[in-house]
Amino acid sequence: MAGSTLGELFRVTNFGESHGPAIGCVVDGCPPGLALSEADIQFELDRRRPGTSRHVTQRQEPDQVEILSGVYQGVTTGTPIALLIRNQDARSKDYGNIAETFRPGHADYTYWHKYGVRDPRGGGRSSARLTAPTVAAGAIARKWLKEHYGVQVRGYMSALGPIEIPFASWDAVPENPFYAPNADIVPQLEAYMDELRRDGDSIGARIEVVAENVPVGLGEPIYDRLDADIAYAMMGLNAVKGVEIGAGFASVAQRGSEHGDELNPAGFASNHAGGVLGGISTGQPITVSIAIKPTSSIRTGRQSIDKAGEPVEVSTLGRHDPCVGIRATPIAESLMALVLIDHVLRHRALCADVRVSTPVIPGQAPGSPTL
Amino acid sequence: MAGSTLGELFRVTNFGESHGPAIGCVVDGCPPGLALSEADIQFELDRRRPGTSRHVTQRQEPDQVEILSGVYQGVTTGTPIALLIRNQDARSKDYGNIAETFRPGHADYTYWHKYGVRDPRGGGRSSARLTAPTVAAGAIARKWLKEHYGVQVRGYMSALGPIEIPFASWDAVPENPFYAPNADIVPQLEAYMDELRRDGDSIGARIEVVAENVPVGLGEPIYDRLDADIAYAMMGLNAVKGVEIGAGFASVAQRGSEHGDELNPAGFASNHAGGVLGGISTGQPITVSIAIKPTSSIRTGRQSIDKAGEPVEVSTLGRHDPCVGIRATPIAESLMALVLIDHVLRHRALCADVRVSTPVIPGQAPGSPTL
Amino acid sequence: MAGSTLGELFRVTNFGESHGPAIGCVVDGCPPGLALSEADIQFELDRRRPGTSRHVTQRQEPDQVEILSGVYQGVTTGTPIALLIRNQDARSKDYGNIAETFRPGHADYTYWHKYGVRDPRGGGRSSARLTAPTVAAGAIARKWLKEHYGVQVRGYMSALGPIEIPFASWDAVPENPFYAPNADIVPQLEAYMDELRRDGDSIGARIEVVAENVPVGLGEPIYDRLDADIAYAMMGLNAVKGVEIGAGFASVAQRGSEHGDELNPAGFASNHAGGVLGGISTGQPITVSIAIKPTSSIRTGRQSIDKAGEPVEVSTLGRHDPCVGIRATPIAESLMALVLIDHVLRHRALCADVRVSTPVIPGQAPGSPTL
Amino acid sequence: MAGSTLGELFRVTNFGESHGPAIGCVVDGCPPGLALSEADIQFELDRRRPGTSRHVTQRQEPDQVEILSGVYQGVTTGTPIALLIRNQDARSKDYGNIAETFRPGHADYTYWHKYGVRDPRGGGRSSARLTAPTVAAGAIARKWLKEHYGVQVRGYMSALGPIEIPFASWDAVPENPFYAPNADIVPQLEAYMDELRRDGDSIGARIEVVAENVPVGLGEPIYDRLDADIAYAMMGLNAVKGVEIGAGFASVAQRGSEHGDELNPAGFASNHAGGVLGGISTGQPITVSIAIKPTSSIRTGRQSIDKAGEPVEVSTLGRHDPCVGIRATPIAESLMALVLIDHVLRHRALCADVRVSTPVIPGQAPGSPTL
Repeated sequence: MAGSTLGELFRVTNFGESHGPAIGCVVDGCPPGLALSEADIQFELDRRRPGTSRHVTQRQEPDQVEILSGVYQGVTTGTPIALLIRNQDARSKDYGNIAETFRPGHADYTYWHKYGVRDPRGGGRSSARLTAPTVAAGAIARKWLKEHYGVQVRGYMSALGPIEIPFASWDAVPENPFYAPNADIVPQLEAYMDELRRDGDSIGARIEVVAENVPVGLGEPIYDRLDADIAYAMMGLNAVKGVEIGAGFASVAQRGSEHGDELNPAGFASNHAGGVLGGISTGQPITVSIAIKPTSSIRTGRQSIDKAGEPVEVSTLGRHDPCVGIRATPIAESLMALVLIDHVLRHRALCADVRVSTPVIPGQAPGSPTL
Repeated sequence: MAGSTLGELFRVTNFGESHGPAIGCVVDGCPPGLALSEADIQFELDRRRPGTSRHVTQRQEPDQVEILSGVYQGVTTGTPIALLIRNQDARSKDYGNIAETFRPGHADYTYWHKYGVRDPRGGGRSSARLTAPTVAAGAIARKWLKEHYGVQVRGYMSALGPIEIPFASWDAVPENPFYAPNADIVPQLEAYMDELRRDGDSIGARIEVVAENVPVGLGEPIYDRLDADIAYAMMGLNAVKGVEIGAGFASVAQRGSEHGDELNPAGFASNHAGGVLGGISTGQPITVSIAIKPTSSIRTGRQSIDKAGEPVEVSTLGRHDPCVGIRATPIAESLMALVLIDHVLRHRALCADVRVSTPVIPGQAPGSPTL
Repeated sequence: MAGSTLGELFRVTNFGESHGPAIGCVVDGCPPGLALSEADIQFELDRRRPGTSRHVTQRQEPDQVEILSGVYQGVTTGTPIALLIRNQDARSKDYGNIAETFRPGHADYTYWHKYGVRDPRGGGRSSARLTAPTVAAGAIARKWLKEHYGVQVRGYMSALGPIEIPFASWDAVPENPFYAPNADIVPQLEAYMDELRRDGDSIGARIEVVAENVPVGLGEPIYDRLDADIAYAMMGLNAVKGVEIGAGFASVAQRGSEHGDELNPAGFASNHAGGVLGGISTGQPITVSIAIKPTSSIRTGRQSIDKAGEPVEVSTLGRHDPCVGIRATPIAESLMALVLIDHVLRHRALCADVRVSTPVIPGQAPGSPTL
Repeated sequence: MAGSTLGELFRVTNFGESHGPAIGCVVDGCPPGLALSEADIQFELDRRRPGTSRHVTQRQEPDQVEILSGVYQGVTTGTPIALLIRNQDARSKDYGNIAETFRPGHADYTYWHKYGVRDPRGGGRSSARLTAPTVAAGAIARKWLKEHYGVQVRGYMSALGPIEIPFASWDAVPENPFYAPNADIVPQLEAYMDELRRDGDSIGARIEVVAENVPVGLGEPIYDRLDADIAYAMMGLNAVKGVEIGAGFASVAQRGSEHGDELNPAGFASNHAGGVLGGISTGQPITVSIAIKPTSSIRTGRQSIDKAGEPVEVSTLGRHDPCVGIRATPIAESLMALVLIDHVLRHRALCADVRVSTPVIPGQAPGSPTL
């Protein structure tokens, strides 16, 4: 689908600007019969919310969601679910000078060239604030996937700038503001961020997302492969510059005898594929890694031009995340869930009544997403 | 768009199997008025064609394209352009054992689980042979982009397995079977491939694609960003496991003061963005890097299971590329061109002023692209 | 596009239920640079609004629209325009008995069978109240079409039940609650409606829509013909059971020598085609006629069943239009405008020459619709 | 979907011109596991084929279809099914003068204005010959619908110009070249056509299509209603100027107490709705009526202009149907089947696993398309 809509069958249409009256989305194509309340969605929104630690933007937004439609007596009706989030803490005057100049590395330049007009307040439509509706829609997808197939989508930060974060435990992830899967490294991350803030600079990060209990058979070759749609969704997240699935760039130097995951009657022996072969899910965990660039809005002065093409030095005031990667984990998880639910619906449209006769593994019926 | 169709406005619908009667595509949405002949398309198909060196599959396919529709008196008419390529050198008997077992790392397993039936001959629909129609469609896109905006899309191999290939010159690229931009390294690449063939193994590769003279303003945030659509197209190419744009994964460790490309009245001072900011093209070269995994069809024996779930050793006969990356460059270029033309059409729908309000002038069709 | 979205490039995604907290839509794909205020939209909403005469439902809804996004400093920015209308006068208790039974001729039955759950309050999602967002979106389309090409879309009632309404003058249309183009017949219409209300019954109507100054060349054969998309949009309006373009069903008995509109150097000599030939606009007025069935919600008792399949007599309380056709004119006009703007954008994508190759001029954004 | 593609999930992409090398289509989204051979498709193509009686065009085309992909060992694989029909009896020289002038009532004028170029041979892309691929795709849809749900789609001619054809029996339909459901009237139809041919003129017709055993619950409000998509498909058939569903235009003069179909425990008592309520199928027969205009290509001389805007008299040679309605019945049936299969797939994507607890009629589970 085009423009501001994600998905073919589970469609999320996003709207809003950073400092406009509201942001939100319409979720069309959600199956009927799912128990759904605002609390289900709020939980995920709160994970993404700004202002929750000193390492992220200090903008105070409750990000309180209102369900406007599509739910009756606590259950989805199969009709569009409109979600509304009012903006509350916009301080547009901080952005006065941005309207006339282009921040290096920022969408200021391209929006203005594309549209001829743009809303500069808080980055307008290009602000990462617009990921909140994605997270809200993702919460619905996650709940449905969990209830129907036990799908679990989780993510964590694996690198903050130059600091590699070794995976220790999923339990550590919700215990720190970085989504780091390793409690021991948190002080080092905090110290790094404190120094960065003093420098008026920003930094990149790498995030991993893992989806477990994914039904086998999701994805439509040639073009709408599951991995292609995951790459599309992830690269569409603000500031992402790279996406890997499974072995990713490491597969360049691998031989086929090493990369190809062997099978035995109990299942796969490894997962270099990252859960996708030929564009279709294998049933193994889907593993994705994304690279997030440093924020372009920094206090440090930089060379740029204004709308008249004259040279200017730009240093950005306003409130910004010095590392957008810190809040990216729940967003990337949401995008994964949105791609998965869309492909589950597509799969059951195309293949739902196929009854493959010989199961591969005793007790497991291949081709059936209902298991 | 869904399934086997790429693009929203310049739409390529792919069909065929490796050993079926024919492969091809329908290109719908090509603007009228483009001079187009089969020779224009054949040139690009020949760059991708198998059997042209000892380092690729020895299947002999002329890949001769027939234009079935959409072109009248050598000019596109604005109606669907159907392209047909007959398969000629299929040796399906080589694949008899594949029908009952799953090659490690191959789509055999997932196709069977998804659809319950599959055409195993030569990999059926999952074969990289199905990239030929993509290249054919891409040839049309490239010609149109070149003529209208001077867009040039070029690619090269930057790594063959463990061998990094330093960029020396574009001129070297067409002079060797690897699309290596460096004549000096070719003997090393050839020796590596010869050894690999002796080992009955395969290897990965990394490919770079660069698009120059891209109009500024292409791409539709939030979701259909230009970089998102490029990532989608590239990850949808057989065997691709990773995609980077601009600085890619290197941006993880970069500071904002380093990554953000400064501007001056003459233009951008660097291109860490890879030509895309906020999902919209900047007018700078778009630079993409992709990781290609090693072929799964290798002679070396590997552990797997058959359809009944019983353990088997699989070693693949038939003719296969030991490094699919070798022929990937023209395909990746084609995908880039297809994404770009689609976004040019989308951009002019949304943002360009239509000049069709002129009354009908005798002898001249209003709305004609020749005006 | 699917489900609750109308249009390919100018996309309207509708949400809401009759008695939910709000109704509205997201308009994605509106070109940037259009001056737009809530007043522009409110004008058309007020033409459709309930409670404005004794012949329509007495529900009191201000239908006040709020623009949530996509407009900055009074001008569209090219990003999604979200429109919100809060429901205010819902009296859900009137509908208690409807929840368990099916009104003859009403969507009660099919919604329940499709989704398994439904919101019965005021007809829920199936209520004609959900045409308000269509009218709101249509107001934007109309303004843009008017400003760019002088397109004018107008409609009128040509029959109220058995009463044929001869066309007298466009001037009469806004002067009476029926959109009748003939002041003399209004008393007869009023008397008819008064009698109908006394009978507790409802009646059908026929509406004509005419679009003038339509650019030539709109429409995409084979399938997305302009007339096909108009038929789709009109048949999708609640209660419509028939659509004609140009001579419509009268063309069944016409000979080719009568039907085919002759041309001369000054233009067409007649318009049996209704402004569309081969699925593409001719530049003549597009003329459409639609049949609207009588409302299913009537006081008169009728035989039906309840959810348990037991026979019941249903007579509908609550507030309903005894002739939905009375308020249908502005809605049908809006649908026409929405189809036209979508095809204008599609046409300029495919056939118009882009003027964006000009280099960046200081102070002026290339690609801007104001150039 | 856009342009030359019909359907959201069962997608038919049409290509070709009347006198080009070939016509055909790609059917993407057909579920795997359907037994399918060329004979299945040929049967329907032969019903539409030209040259089978003196009352239709004398062009001799075998319309022999070749399946190029998507079928393996006689069974669909879930991948795109490409269908190819070579043109054989093109006599392009008969159309020389058409290239420079516009036939009144023909797409000549609009194609030229839209695209600036056009293929005039045999009407090029605007020829009704392009309905052959629709029929071929429809044959697949019909077979699948029949096997899964027992859906039966049938049509007949109900009026030939001024001659009303009373329905006598379905058995009569295949026994005459008009698809008239009444053997007694056939001599009158033949005499009328013979006279028409002598006059060098053409005539309109009305066709009825009925779909039986349609699952309840198909259709997606607000916009993609089942009736809206049927109207779209039918109005997109060459020469169609009007579409009615159920009571159609007769509903204008009906009261609600007459129109609304009452229910009792055994089912509906009437079918004014034509099988669709609120845009969703009721399970009753879907009844559609379409108006077909007279062919524009007639021998009788008519006033027109040439490309230079100069007045000319046009009389059309070449071979043409004097009543395109005669061969329209199998095409309209095919379109109905294509819309139905698309909505079955959409329904099972959205609602497949809904389990409505209380069936309306004992022994029948509402909401389940698998019954």
